[in-house]
Amino acid sequence: MNLFSMFSRRNTAPAARERLQLLLAHERAVSGQSDLLATLREEILAVIAKHVSIDPEKVKVTLDKGDAISTLEVDIELPLADITATQMKAANG
Amino acid sequence: MNLFSMFSRRNTAPAARERLQLLLAHERAVSGQSDLLATLREEILAVIAKHVSIDPEKVKVTLDKGDAISTLEVDIELPLADITATQMKAANG
Repeated sequence: MNLFSMFSRRNTAPAARERLQLLLAHERAVSGQSDLLATLREEILAVIAKHVSIDPEKVKVTLDKGDAISTLEVDIELPLADITATQMKAANG
Repeated sequence: MNLFSMFSRRNTAPAARERLQLLLAHERAVSGQSDLLATLREEILAVIAKHVSIDPEKVKVTLDKGDAISTLEVDIELPLADITATQMKAANG
């Protein structure tokens, strides 16, 4: 399932699982320039991992380098258990 | 110009300016849950700012909270001067 299809079901009922998708596009003025996205990739994943527990097997990363535009797509399925535990903690105050 | 139109000109000639666009979508299993994107927003911008100089006036942030899906869109126009300086430094070895 790619990011765009996700947007078409914007306000339907919550899904059966939790998912985080990131799409980063770098449009260059000078072709052949060093790849900003490869640099950002690890650090952005580290930021996400600080806030939600990530199962490396549930993370799909696609880096695509074009002459004018490079894109980084990250698709993370988040563990449901994590969420229900946080919900219960919040409910018990 | 939104992120999707950017993808339609994937391999044409480099653009007249440098641009970084980020799209983050959080699909929730439980509606009304705390907003992960608002938490991630500042930290991801800080990671990007470590690698490219960002003019706050050239940064557009859109946070859209739906019941099932929230989206964060960040559109950053990067300064060209920054890039040509790095190019020259690299060329002079």
